[in-house]
Amino acid sequence: MKALKTVRIGICGLGTVGSGTFNVLTRNTALINSRAGADIRIVQVAARRNNPACDTGDVPVTRDIFEVVRNPEVDVVVELIGGITVARDLVLEAIHNGKHVVTANKALIAEHGNEIFEAAGQKEVMVAFEAAVAGGIPIIKTLREGLGANRIEWLAGIINGTGNFILTSMEEQGRDFEDVLEEAKAKGYAEADPTFDVEGIDAAHKLVILASLAFGIPLQFDRVYTEGIGDIDLQDVAYARELGYRIKHLGIARQTERGVEARVHPTLIPDSCLLAEVDGVMNAVMVEGDAVGPTMFYGAGAGDEPTASAVVADIIDVARALNVAPEARVPYLAFSEASFNDIPVLPMEEVETAYYLRMRALDKPGVLSQVASIMSDRGISIEAIIQKSPRPGEDHVPLIMLTNKALERDLLAAVAAVQELDAIEGELIRLRVETLDR
Amino acid sequence: MKALKTVRIGICGLGTVGSGTFNVLTRNTALINSRAGADIRIVQVAARRNNPACDTGDVPVTRDIFEVVRNPEVDVVVELIGGITVARDLVLEAIHNGKHVVTANKALIAEHGNEIFEAAGQKEVMVAFEAAVAGGIPIIKTLREGLGANRIEWLAGIINGTGNFILTSMEEQGRDFEDVLEEAKAKGYAEADPTFDVEGIDAAHKLVILASLAFGIPLQFDRVYTEGIGDIDLQDVAYARELGYRIKHLGIARQTERGVEARVHPTLIPDSCLLAEVDGVMNAVMVEGDAVGPTMFYGAGAGDEPTASAVVADIIDVARALNVAPEARVPYLAFSEASFNDIPVLPMEEVETAYYLRMRALDKPGVLSQVASIMSDRGISIEAIIQKSPRPGEDHVPLIMLTNKALERDLLAAVAAVQELDAIEGELIRLRVETLDR
Repeated sequence: MKALKTVRIGICGLGTVGSGTFNVLTRNTALINSRAGADIRIVQVAARRNNPACDTGDVPVTRDIFEVVRNPEVDVVVELIGGITVARDLVLEAIHNGKHVVTANKALIAEHGNEIFEAAGQKEVMVAFEAAVAGGIPIIKTLREGLGANRIEWLAGIINGTGNFILTSMEEQGRDFEDVLEEAKAKGYAEADPTFDVEGIDAAHKLVILASLAFGIPLQFDRVYTEGIGDIDLQDVAYARELGYRIKHLGIARQTERGVEARVHPTLIPDSCLLAEVDGVMNAVMVEGDAVGPTMFYGAGAGDEPTASAVVADIIDVARALNVAPEARVPYLAFSEASFNDIPVLPMEEVETAYYLRMRALDKPGVLSQVASIMSDRGISIEAIIQKSPRPGEDHVPLIMLTNKALERDLLAAVAAVQELDAIEGELIRLRVETLDR
Repeated sequence: MKALKTVRIGICGLGTVGSGTFNVLTRNTALINSRAGADIRIVQVAARRNNPACDTGDVPVTRDIFEVVRNPEVDVVVELIGGITVARDLVLEAIHNGKHVVTANKALIAEHGNEIFEAAGQKEVMVAFEAAVAGGIPIIKTLREGLGANRIEWLAGIINGTGNFILTSMEEQGRDFEDVLEEAKAKGYAEADPTFDVEGIDAAHKLVILASLAFGIPLQFDRVYTEGIGDIDLQDVAYARELGYRIKHLGIARQTERGVEARVHPTLIPDSCLLAEVDGVMNAVMVEGDAVGPTMFYGAGAGDEPTASAVVADIIDVARALNVAPEARVPYLAFSEASFNDIPVLPMEEVETAYYLRMRALDKPGVLSQVASIMSDRGISIEAIIQKSPRPGEDHVPLIMLTNKALERDLLAAVAAVQELDAIEGELIRLRVETLDR
């Protein structure tokens, strides 16, 4: 038996994911090395402070993360510090020094990935980022390799666990957004500043990566349409249920003849669909390929060891391919750069989807037909309606509609016109609906 | 830009999967080549007869499958003829001739895989078999690579679409087994001779492959415990529902301190669990890893293009790694042979699981306590009971129980003793229950 080659790892960052990675590598050393065909050793860790969740034992710990990327003993830099400013400098310097990189940093890849892969290509080093999307679910590998035979038609994912926890709790317990958000903070699911999760920015970072891998387009974070969950009303959760739907915060990417859709927003999906059953902090991504049909990949989207599972899978891949010629490695963004697709990302107004509308309408004959006629003038047909009886003393009633698919631009025009009607009171609520079939 | 290396494919078999593979490779050539970093060309096809579903165009078609494995122009042999006798000869000769092999043949891998991988290792060629388990779901890649950081604790899968279609239809439509089986045959979901599907042999083939990849053990088809779905009674489907469970035909593999469990049988699973929602011909595999926690992978388990999706993904992997040193390739069975685990596969009597029991008991005081006391004497506790009122004129009533976890040996002894009671009429029905949590 030949001696295994040694692969020397330097870990930057010893927070939740860093300590999880250290612990998994240490606990499962024998099976990891057997799978990798390599002797994987952590030779240095950089952390601002020690983490009680992680006993680094004999491994040297430095306070200076840049020491790791300059350490001639390190073959693979594992970037787990988060953020995009220092992380970008760190990763680019690691690449410049000829080191391979494994990162869990979705923001870094989404916003600076094109630059990073360009630099890595020139230095012929690997940059792996499985942990950047959907935690422990190997969705990057699935898109780059497992479904490589397919033209990907669309994908739709619950890719932010915090948001899904909040929505699930609102629905199951009838509690409102602010209330559940406080619980999520207390449980550590949401950051003290939950903006990234709640406004959909975190999901948008992940979606732009998935869209690039699926469709062979460069990373275009600034083209993703993003809407958060902060405005979701319990009423709409209940009406959706009544109509046979659940509201999930989805990242959706779709390839159409006119361009690529890339959008993050609350979405009504049929309650019969598997994705509707994904609750709490769990993540799941549906992918529809032309050959394979519908698929779904489910697991924990965050947490120390689930994320470490993905980081270490990348370390194994990199260790295995260390001496492999660059052209025999999986391309960073799934496709060889030379064949990148120049198909545009569509602005939201040009996206076609179905809609859920809720308004308060005067309870008298003719109002519904006024609304329906405004819709049909713009080619929008109505699929289902709920009209509630007025409460005692009120002359307006809730009117809920599901439309067929329409161009967002036409829908917005129709909504504006409906909003002008004397019979309509207050703001019209609009959510998007996806049936997630072919 | 460097010219892409050419990789020459020979396809043996032009049935459902063969024609699907030909069609996918032909339709998606550009994107497949871009992902593979290679120019993948079909240079020969062997088929007993032409398939109207597939226009082979300019590609030479031979009636002699062995011509393909002897063709010096072929780099990769794609074995899609099925069966194990000729297929074994074909694959071994291909390997002997230094060709890489891609196969969708679960029976071949399950029953002759050890021999095939041994031969392939000596000739330093790849043998890829993603399509052998769960059709288009990249579950082989997920176990070998995506979850490579984990000690796999257990996996449980709906890995036979025909069986799941039958069970789903029985449950949803209240139809009995024979009736639905005829429909499955008429729809082409079941073969004219449905033995392999109905008796669980097909699922056992797949399970043995999954267990090997998960736990690093050699393939041991003869050690898998297998029970089919032919004896499932509609009554039990209904009682299971009443208790909050659904009956699914699962392949289950688990790593315990005493050994590995590998078993295929009808199983009650909680209806709140995602696997319980997998209906019709769809497949899904849950995998629990020590780091990642619970995961699930869902998609079409059969069919021309879903299976082709997996075959072509393998072709891409093989094409990419063609000039890669053998030690830098993913090991056939996930782990380097040198570190194969000699942990034994447990006989079914030594497996611990929970049970569903149904019997007809005399409707008089004291019977239930007799049964309960027999159980508790063997350390088996009862978790839930349903006792129905007697029908007019009948003096026996259905008595249904769920037990806690017990050793199968103890349960069998208890069942034999209960069966001896004068108060128990007819045969006691026994099904296994899994909660699928940690």
